[in-house]
Amino acid sequence: MALIVHKYGGTSMGSTERISNVAKRVAKWHRAGHQMVVVPSAMSGETNRLLGLAKELAPSSMGNAYGRELDMLAATGEQASSALLAIALQAEGVDAVSFAGWQVPIKTNSAFTKARIESIDDERVRAELNAGKVVIVTGFQGIDPDGHITTLGRGGSDTSAVAVAAALKAAECLIYTDVDGVYTTDPRVVPEARRLPLVSFEEMLEMASLGSKVLQIRSVEFAGKYKVPLRVLSSFTPWDIDLTEEAASGTLITFEEDEDMERAVVSGIAFNRDEAKIAVLGVPDTPGIAYQILGVVADANIEVDVIIQNVGKEGKTDFSFTVHRNDFQKALDLLKTEVLPKLGASEVVGDARICKVSIVGIGMRSHVGVASRMFKCMSDEGINIQMISTSEIKTSVVIDEKYMELAVRSLHREFELDQPVDTIAE
Amino acid sequence: MALIVHKYGGTSMGSTERISNVAKRVAKWHRAGHQMVVVPSAMSGETNRLLGLAKELAPSSMGNAYGRELDMLAATGEQASSALLAIALQAEGVDAVSFAGWQVPIKTNSAFTKARIESIDDERVRAELNAGKVVIVTGFQGIDPDGHITTLGRGGSDTSAVAVAAALKAAECLIYTDVDGVYTTDPRVVPEARRLPLVSFEEMLEMASLGSKVLQIRSVEFAGKYKVPLRVLSSFTPWDIDLTEEAASGTLITFEEDEDMERAVVSGIAFNRDEAKIAVLGVPDTPGIAYQILGVVADANIEVDVIIQNVGKEGKTDFSFTVHRNDFQKALDLLKTEVLPKLGASEVVGDARICKVSIVGIGMRSHVGVASRMFKCMSDEGINIQMISTSEIKTSVVIDEKYMELAVRSLHREFELDQPVDTIAE
Repeated sequence: MALIVHKYGGTSMGSTERISNVAKRVAKWHRAGHQMVVVPSAMSGETNRLLGLAKELAPSSMGNAYGRELDMLAATGEQASSALLAIALQAEGVDAVSFAGWQVPIKTNSAFTKARIESIDDERVRAELNAGKVVIVTGFQGIDPDGHITTLGRGGSDTSAVAVAAALKAAECLIYTDVDGVYTTDPRVVPEARRLPLVSFEEMLEMASLGSKVLQIRSVEFAGKYKVPLRVLSSFTPWDIDLTEEAASGTLITFEEDEDMERAVVSGIAFNRDEAKIAVLGVPDTPGIAYQILGVVADANIEVDVIIQNVGKEGKTDFSFTVHRNDFQKALDLLKTEVLPKLGASEVVGDARICKVSIVGIGMRSHVGVASRMFKCMSDEGINIQMISTSEIKTSVVIDEKYMELAVRSLHREFELDQPVDTIAE
Repeated sequence: MALIVHKYGGTSMGSTERISNVAKRVAKWHRAGHQMVVVPSAMSGETNRLLGLAKELAPSSMGNAYGRELDMLAATGEQASSALLAIALQAEGVDAVSFAGWQVPIKTNSAFTKARIESIDDERVRAELNAGKVVIVTGFQGIDPDGHITTLGRGGSDTSAVAVAAALKAAECLIYTDVDGVYTTDPRVVPEARRLPLVSFEEMLEMASLGSKVLQIRSVEFAGKYKVPLRVLSSFTPWDIDLTEEAASGTLITFEEDEDMERAVVSGIAFNRDEAKIAVLGVPDTPGIAYQILGVVADANIEVDVIIQNVGKEGKTDFSFTVHRNDFQKALDLLKTEVLPKLGASEVVGDARICKVSIVGIGMRSHVGVASRMFKCMSDEGINIQMISTSEIKTSVVIDEKYMELAVRSLHREFELDQPVDTIAE
């Protein structure tokens, strides 16, 4: 008997029939004796519908000037779905109450359309839980110090759920979504991909930042910071499956590192073809070069991912980095017109047909030679590595995008990710 | 240069194009130097859509048990339309801010789905007005003492607008709607019906209670109580018509009784075919009879309108009253089974094919013989009067419903309502 937070995405709330199924599932947990807090997203399509209306009225409305009113508008989606879920629960005979962000309150800063949660008052929610009610808290929204409604930006409901779970010191936060967990890699690329029963939040963080779309990266950061056990599981299993079975399904994202468990060296393969590579060649090898090149890029609000500077030779060096493919042309033009003449570099070259493939695993910390095993695998397949970037639990390579599937499949096999974790010989 | 409140109904807010026109109209008033507060309804159809979803989840949800969540749900309609209007105004270059009921706050009691406004805090609205902004306040909703969202019930946005105007001591509250004012009677029945440039709030109150649907009766009561000058006007005139012309259009509902103006004896003819007549015949003429009959009806939550008791004869009397046509059969059955045997009355008879026609006019106070002029008019047309009910500024007759149009047209002519008011010889 514990305090549990459930989060349901827009697809799970997409029709009254689905809302009714969510209510039945929550009622099952409630009847099993758990104190239940539920954080729903808006019904699928609703946020887009509302923001579409705003765009008709003010084509430029997605800028900051309209932020306060866009939040006022968009926040209605979650308020409506939360009230509907409360009604569905009451129809199931379960006492339930819904709270908008400002009613909890979920306090945020004033960065409209992308606000950050600053604190959550748990008193009101706890009082209703103690009165035996299921408490529904709108995802995605809060209230700023001046009493304005704010929203957390797309996918913010995951963050809301984790933040509410942290504030209430919930035993677990269950994120119900349209996939049944976190996989060793995308099953559309590697059919042998396996669901991971357990993944560390640091691995999850790397996977999310590498483009795995299961969870919003901010919610994972939050879970890590406040040590909230997170579980990703499917909302499409029948609502009446055995609760014990359901509670053990999906993928548990845990912050416990000292667990006595077998760990694979590599937990997953992430990949991303949204990037493009830019190289500035023949740059004078003097201090301040990185800033002179990347400062211009940063000023144009272009985010840079992998950065590489080769060891210099004859006073010259090559400097390469990757940007999002959407920013590729803009970054290239900037460098050609503003940086090249000033630096006296010889050339700026770019390639948009690249991809990034990464191996992620907390086991890499204690196992040497994992990266070189990756490089050998690429070499065996005849894949040329263009850039390399490493962190404590991740190694990424940039390669020609035409080799992406081949690289992912080979690495998946190389690190035996198609085998259940407990049969791996370490 | 005054503080003006505009209220726009759901039809006026029914599409982004219409919202944009509302914004242009409000911007015109703002640019003329007025401090503007706007109270919009939800986009037409939105409230029904939301409550329809609730009904799918819980067919019995329109009862009181679900009230809190229904209000949470329905209140999103006005929050969204208010934010959209703020965005449209900003797109017009006018600084605007929207406030939900709880943000003002508009404080109500806790009667969910039919709450009553208890007080309005004007500080926040006034501060934004003084900062040069147009302030948009959601209609239809408020917050109760426990911080729950409440709604005022259907048509509540009119009441919100009047209440906001009262709290801010606005110079005038303009209700923009799909008719261009209050008419001497329904133009669909009498093509010669004229728009009244001016009507007293007491006359308006009588007309509203008699079934004229231009304004919600509660908003008129509110306007009378707080002496808010109300104007009903069309939202379908082009937004760019001359402001002075617009400000003088429609019908002004005024609380000023001592104005130096010509007054017609009768201002309007109201009618209502939603009623049915019930008569209890041969009732013992003893004290407590009215209570014994109507107590049973009231206990069944049936509202009674006209009530008549004839002078008794030989210790017996007849007792008649009207109820809403929907309640007719229920009331009839109740009286036959519960009242008739107990009272020893001789018979209960009913007729659902009746209607009520009323003349309304503040001039009736100072003019004798108005009622008899009405009765003579009915007599001249050969219309039998079945019941009569009078108040200080109204006389109603119950007649066979087949004579309704004839009665309304004859009375309209009799009281010269087809003539401009300033040409009437009194």
